[in-house]
Amino acid sequence: MNLPKAVDQLVGELSKLPGVGRRSAERLALHLAVGPSERLQSLADALHAVRQSVSACELCGALREGDACGFCSDPSRDASTIVVVERSLDVIAMEKSAGFRGLYHVLGGLLSPLRGVAPSMLRLAELGERLADEEVRELVLATPPTVEGDATSLYISRQFSREGLAMTRLGRGVPQGGSLEHADAGTLRMALQGRQRVEP
Amino acid sequence: MNLPKAVDQLVGELSKLPGVGRRSAERLALHLAVGPSERLQSLADALHAVRQSVSACELCGALREGDACGFCSDPSRDASTIVVVERSLDVIAMEKSAGFRGLYHVLGGLLSPLRGVAPSMLRLAELGERLADEEVRELVLATPPTVEGDATSLYISRQFSREGLAMTRLGRGVPQGGSLEHADAGTLRMALQGRQRVEP
Repeated sequence: MNLPKAVDQLVGELSKLPGVGRRSAERLALHLAVGPSERLQSLADALHAVRQSVSACELCGALREGDACGFCSDPSRDASTIVVVERSLDVIAMEKSAGFRGLYHVLGGLLSPLRGVAPSMLRLAELGERLADEEVRELVLATPPTVEGDATSLYISRQFSREGLAMTRLGRGVPQGGSLEHADAGTLRMALQGRQRVEP
Repeated sequence: MNLPKAVDQLVGELSKLPGVGRRSAERLALHLAVGPSERLQSLADALHAVRQSVSACELCGALREGDACGFCSDPSRDASTIVVVERSLDVIAMEKSAGFRGLYHVLGGLLSPLRGVAPSMLRLAELGERLADEEVRELVLATPPTVEGDATSLYISRQFSREGLAMTRLGRGVPQGGSLEHADAGTLRMALQGRQRVEP
């Protein structure tokens, strides 16, 4: 194959990204290689800026720019409620829902005996320290609704249970805009168990 | 949204890539932002290397590294046959087929009165110059099998016809591994017209 070595290397780097296969990586690399060189430069600059300025907050584990975490250092956010999530991506999803004004705690994974993920490999010690503060009154366990997610939540609720701290989890049921016909049996069972009174 | 500005900018750059929507760009940017910083660096380096060393060959329009085109400067390739393609990506597809050892000519687009693409906007003058060389004896018109592709090939065959230059196009028919049941009527018609004698 007479693909320039530099393009081939770019294909290799791009195909390491999640959800990008060899074919897509080739298409992307070619698009970048044949386009104006400013296109390459602005993507490289953006990567550089992230490398320079973005890191995980030592306290909550969410992404922060510079030294101050946009969540932990924001006095308008309610420090009495912490939402526990698996990944930084989940923080973004929660923020998009615009339904929460408290703080976050990113675990960095889920407990999994099968895949060898033990409690010490998650940010659980940090969570314990934050919960020692009496000001925190609710912990929302927002791990994904899977076996591993539920196991992780159960572990946390047992480990960190204390007087004056409410443990909750996200509601489960039929998704907004979805149809009953397409909901699976487990989801419908959850939706029935979690049924709510309609105020007339 | 409390997404760090640098990550937001990276999302913007990534979502400019073909086939990468806002959601995928977010996933990719987060993956890069939360991962080890070497990951960011190696992708940025690969982009930089492409910017530094890769350009389009002035003669054939294919991508080349440094000053010498891997096709035009390769004496083992058959200079009597030129395959005309729309894009650099098509050169890669042809090379993968490993069925061709001649030279290429990348047009950089297809004629399209509807989208306002006139002959002067393609690399046709360059093609004319190359065909003036009597050594070139076959021009394979490998534009895509679409209305615009066929119109472009027809234009080229009329414009550059000369004594001693054979104009051919790629064979059309049922794709290798495909089933007749799933072939569309136009493809089957082409396959019938292009039927070939079986040597017993």
